[in-house]
Amino acid sequence: MQTLIVYAHPEPRSFNRALLDRSVQVLTGQGHEVVVSDLYAMGFNPVASAADFSERRFPDALQYDREQKHAHEHQAFAPDIQAEIDKLRACDLLILQFPLWWFSVPAILKGWIDRVFVNGVVYGKGRRFDTGGLRGKRALVCTSTACYPEMVAPDGLLAALDINLWHLQHGTLGYAGCDVLRPFAAWSIHYTTPEARAGYLDAYEQRLRQIEQEEPMPMHRLEEFGADWRLRPGIEPRTAGHRRPAAEGAR
Amino acid sequence: MQTLIVYAHPEPRSFNRALLDRSVQVLTGQGHEVVVSDLYAMGFNPVASAADFSERRFPDALQYDREQKHAHEHQAFAPDIQAEIDKLRACDLLILQFPLWWFSVPAILKGWIDRVFVNGVVYGKGRRFDTGGLRGKRALVCTSTACYPEMVAPDGLLAALDINLWHLQHGTLGYAGCDVLRPFAAWSIHYTTPEARAGYLDAYEQRLRQIEQEEPMPMHRLEEFGADWRLRPGIEPRTAGHRRPAAEGAR
Repeated sequence: MQTLIVYAHPEPRSFNRALLDRSVQVLTGQGHEVVVSDLYAMGFNPVASAADFSERRFPDALQYDREQKHAHEHQAFAPDIQAEIDKLRACDLLILQFPLWWFSVPAILKGWIDRVFVNGVVYGKGRRFDTGGLRGKRALVCTSTACYPEMVAPDGLLAALDINLWHLQHGTLGYAGCDVLRPFAAWSIHYTTPEARAGYLDAYEQRLRQIEQEEPMPMHRLEEFGADWRLRPGIEPRTAGHRRPAAEGAR
Repeated sequence: MQTLIVYAHPEPRSFNRALLDRSVQVLTGQGHEVVVSDLYAMGFNPVASAADFSERRFPDALQYDREQKHAHEHQAFAPDIQAEIDKLRACDLLILQFPLWWFSVPAILKGWIDRVFVNGVVYGKGRRFDTGGLRGKRALVCTSTACYPEMVAPDGLLAALDINLWHLQHGTLGYAGCDVLRPFAAWSIHYTTPEARAGYLDAYEQRLRQIEQEEPMPMHRLEEFGADWRLRPGIEPRTAGHRRPAAEGAR
């Protein structure tokens, strides 16, 4: 199994970095190949712009997604983007590892997605969800957060973690065709004991040792939606995002 | 009314830019003060790092949110951050305007949030939601997207727009204390007619003309949650994110 870990943390002495180190150790120990894109160490440029293309289909005004498609067809991506696309296409397991900042990825990782999840490879021409360009690959979000788990219960202060991560797990990784695994979260990390931190590292190791056998989270297949893009009659919502409001007054 | 528009689009000839221009024209025409942070034009740096602080409380290892609090107390923010904090604190209405990229903001705008929504001003010490640092300010997401509106119906291909934007509208703007207004979206913008585009501009103008009277989206108050961070017994979920699963088999 080939693993790509896209890692976005500014501090090499962080607990998040310890999670990364453990994952590399465990996966390589099992004989897997592991590639790490350490975005901060690479000085990765997260800002999508016209400079990302060495030739343009529409030179008058930048239509970023259309130029991605053209660049893919004409080998016209900036080298830093092409290198990441190549890593992405080669992997069987994609891990996005980051501290949860404002219920999403740090900007440097958002820019990796903006620039590397390109039209023509990852999506486009009907490629999405179970026909997505990354179908057959597994994807895992691994994050550390100041939150307590109770805060991201369905009726918690922040609503369910899956709802907070919906744009990333469903709208990005799922849309791209990945089999998305349950996220791994290390909670309230500023305030944990050394023992709790060691426990998180061990729990992450256990997850990774069995990651090839894990059942992905439920996701609807394209064929479950009608021509109006809505779930066909009789199809029950199977995801947190698609659940329907409870009947009035029910609890 | 003082308005801060944080604008993140790489192309000055885009439709998104036309929305910006119309909003500035309408709001200034009504006598409001308008400040625009045009992140691409400013070359805004979206990458949070140790360089954001001129002095450190914990110099050994970067704990970004803790250093934000310290920097606020010691006037130790990098000048580009402090300038944006000052604009943010001064505004009555905050508009985030951007093309919807992977169901979130472009990286350059995520970095503005990461670096400018700082601990000690926007949140921290119990400040959140109705006690958040930005309470009393209105906030509006204005976006253009390749999506069709049917795709973001509650049972649509991508699930409801509010679910996709949950991390931003609830987890960021709402958490910070803003009164969050319904988002404004211009749909499937690559494929619209000039008449449809003119219609979006006019619809946006109408929204802005009455923006001070608009009812914000429902959001739970802190007191509705118990000490366990979950909705107290008897409190009905009032938001898309907090809705409970429908009874088995119900539709």
